[in-house]
Amino acid sequence: MSALLETIARIRREVCDLHAELTRYGLVVWTAGNVSGRIPGYDLMVIKPSGLSYDDLTPETMVVTDLYGTPVSGTSTGGDGTILEWGNPALTPSSDTAAHAYVYRNMPDVGGVVHTHSTYATAWAARGEEIPCVLTMMGDEFGGPIPVGPFALIGDDSIGQGIVETLKNSNSPAVLMQNHGPFTIGKDARSAVKAAVMCEEVARTVHVSRQLGEPLPIDQGQIESLYDRYQNVYGR
Amino acid sequence: MSALLETIARIRREVCDLHAELTRYGLVVWTAGNVSGRIPGYDLMVIKPSGLSYDDLTPETMVVTDLYGTPVSGTSTGGDGTILEWGNPALTPSSDTAAHAYVYRNMPDVGGVVHTHSTYATAWAARGEEIPCVLTMMGDEFGGPIPVGPFALIGDDSIGQGIVETLKNSNSPAVLMQNHGPFTIGKDARSAVKAAVMCEEVARTVHVSRQLGEPLPIDQGQIESLYDRYQNVYGR
Amino acid sequence: MSALLETIARIRREVCDLHAELTRYGLVVWTAGNVSGRIPGYDLMVIKPSGLSYDDLTPETMVVTDLYGTPVSGTSTGGDGTILEWGNPALTPSSDTAAHAYVYRNMPDVGGVVHTHSTYATAWAARGEEIPCVLTMMGDEFGGPIPVGPFALIGDDSIGQGIVETLKNSNSPAVLMQNHGPFTIGKDARSAVKAAVMCEEVARTVHVSRQLGEPLPIDQGQIESLYDRYQNVYGR
Amino acid sequence: MSALLETIARIRREVCDLHAELTRYGLVVWTAGNVSGRIPGYDLMVIKPSGLSYDDLTPETMVVTDLYGTPVSGTSTGGDGTILEWGNPALTPSSDTAAHAYVYRNMPDVGGVVHTHSTYATAWAARGEEIPCVLTMMGDEFGGPIPVGPFALIGDDSIGQGIVETLKNSNSPAVLMQNHGPFTIGKDARSAVKAAVMCEEVARTVHVSRQLGEPLPIDQGQIESLYDRYQNVYGR
Repeated sequence: MSALLETIARIRREVCDLHAELTRYGLVVWTAGNVSGRIPGYDLMVIKPSGLSYDDLTPETMVVTDLYGTPVSGTSTGGDGTILEWGNPALTPSSDTAAHAYVYRNMPDVGGVVHTHSTYATAWAARGEEIPCVLTMMGDEFGGPIPVGPFALIGDDSIGQGIVETLKNSNSPAVLMQNHGPFTIGKDARSAVKAAVMCEEVARTVHVSRQLGEPLPIDQGQIESLYDRYQNVYGR
Repeated sequence: MSALLETIARIRREVCDLHAELTRYGLVVWTAGNVSGRIPGYDLMVIKPSGLSYDDLTPETMVVTDLYGTPVSGTSTGGDGTILEWGNPALTPSSDTAAHAYVYRNMPDVGGVVHTHSTYATAWAARGEEIPCVLTMMGDEFGGPIPVGPFALIGDDSIGQGIVETLKNSNSPAVLMQNHGPFTIGKDARSAVKAAVMCEEVARTVHVSRQLGEPLPIDQGQIESLYDRYQNVYGR
Repeated sequence: MSALLETIARIRREVCDLHAELTRYGLVVWTAGNVSGRIPGYDLMVIKPSGLSYDDLTPETMVVTDLYGTPVSGTSTGGDGTILEWGNPALTPSSDTAAHAYVYRNMPDVGGVVHTHSTYATAWAARGEEIPCVLTMMGDEFGGPIPVGPFALIGDDSIGQGIVETLKNSNSPAVLMQNHGPFTIGKDARSAVKAAVMCEEVARTVHVSRQLGEPLPIDQGQIESLYDRYQNVYGR
Repeated sequence: MSALLETIARIRREVCDLHAELTRYGLVVWTAGNVSGRIPGYDLMVIKPSGLSYDDLTPETMVVTDLYGTPVSGTSTGGDGTILEWGNPALTPSSDTAAHAYVYRNMPDVGGVVHTHSTYATAWAARGEEIPCVLTMMGDEFGGPIPVGPFALIGDDSIGQGIVETLKNSNSPAVLMQNHGPFTIGKDARSAVKAAVMCEEVARTVHVSRQLGEPLPIDQGQIESLYDRYQNVYGR
């Protein structure tokens, strides 16, 4: 099999399997969340198909698109000269594909994107309020507060632009799009899923803490120390 | 097998299986929630039997009733002239059957009805307070706030009337019956279950958001734009 | 096998299996909840052994005690004259056995008792506050508010007395023992478990509702109408 | 096999299996929690490896370290003179190992340590607020409030020191490290896990209770009576 086909098969399996983490941690209901992954070395990505329930996902149903979100399929010549086909034009990519694609086009180091409507993160997003960094694990993972992105309607690049503009100025791999929900990024799809899981975890814990008073702040220098150690010494 | 018998068997299987979605998403405890589906082309519906635990449901236990909630059974002549029986007069339909039946009689486009006491939706219902549309996914699915229906006692058509009166003036497929809980409708039983799942999801998220402040409103024009796109362009 | 041995075997299996409902609905953690059942026709009861984890429960580990909580074992003559043994003196009954036993001695119609520390019911109990009847399903199941019982220490009959005194003056099959947690009763163990599940459900829903305002009251006459219908017409 | 190897194998299996209790009770997400156990009779401990997901844990992946957290391996001579190897130098111990090790060095009766970021306990920790003893089950298990330990950064012994200083002056087997999360101890790993489960349970219940008012206090004498009975008469 050609290198491209092998890579597509691997990323499709990874992206497919990672949706199980979204349901395991209760980040999504029905079909309302999606994971994508870049195909390294090509201007291609793999994303959840639209409307399929999580139980019915298989690697073959994951849709391959270009970095403008258009589904693509094609043929690839295997090592022995065989012509192999890939792509699944019968399925439509997630309705959030344009936002994922915009991120891949504009953030070349990003290899995975996740979108959910997880309850607590979305609750902060509905108030347009960033999550303050009051937990050591937030220092580790997010290096500061989790920021809010602008209100943006689906249909053009405004969601993608809001994600990229917000994350470019932040240590955080998560952004809370106002009235909408979190988008997270990572070096690959697995890292972006981890960020989505941790984003909901800290959104919930800080929410619960604030229900009965004000959490104690952590000094900016200590946050930087936690983040630096976790990202560089301990190795994320 | 005759067309009627085939349709009854299919709808019974669908309605039976969909109860697993109510437990999966934590919308019901014990036996306190029910799904029904219209039998297209006949003045008949299929509904959960009363008092059976969700583990014990099978397609054959689903009760066939007329559109006044009276259990019916009968025979049908198969293609080869064989006389086939259907119906299960040994089981009593859900105590909420009258409300479901009233909806089918008065809303001809409705093919599925769901009733639960899901926690957050019922909490709004106990205050008699509609859920404001402050999430893009509420715009998509509900096209505005989720409205409250009147207080009504079981025993006659007043619950059914309250549901129909409220939903006829709303984009929303969900109504919060005061002090009682949500009823949802859909073009078929699966759509009504999806509405029940999404209703609890937005009831919880907006509740959580309001615990620490006021969610930001979404403009009415933007809500209509979201709803129109989701229902017509994206296709529900 | 003799009638007594058959009954003991049946009640042990029922009481054992019902513990799975406590974990399924999240009413208990670790080993902190217990179900018991009366052996009809004898001054005997069956209860969870102390300290065993829910995964390790089998019918044979359920402890048979008299109605003062003392483990008993004995022999019974089968129909063919065979002498059969019952009881399991190797295991200690739950540390809450005295409270269960007191209820069976003083409420002859009670065939099952359940104790948990379920989160929301215990939260009301810690404030010493009854749960107001603001949901139609509370009218159905509890026929009014869920009352609070006195603060009582383990070690003598004061917990049992507090349960009996409180429930004798109430429609409710559940009592919230102050700073402690709920005890529920029923005509058999299954009914008492149902009451425990519904008690936590309404404790959570009314709690959530009150977090953002005041739930609307239901008229006393309407509560009585709901309760009467559910208990007598619909049949609990 | 030699006694040491047998003990290492047993503790590795116990520590490995106990991580399933952390996920079962929802105390941890992703890889963010860890259990360790002392190897009785040796200056050795066993702890979760760093970064492995809970699904991938096996007894063999549990890392053996000395009581300064340095991974060790070695050989042991079996009864028949065979030389056997132990240890797994390929895996890195949890990034929290230094804190666990400090506890074992300074509290000789402690045989197990657990660290989580469980939601409600961490929420109290973020406010730097102890959990008041307002539940009889808190009296039983914790013998008073659950105390707060100091803010401390990872990297040296300051977390371990904070744990030991706080717990030496308390009945409680749990400490809430400020802005960080709970650490719990026990006579073995299983007891420490039980303490972690009960800590989150009471953190949640007292939180929920305080959301709608003030829980009723329990007299100090009654707390001592509960604790004494549970620890000595009933036997923890």
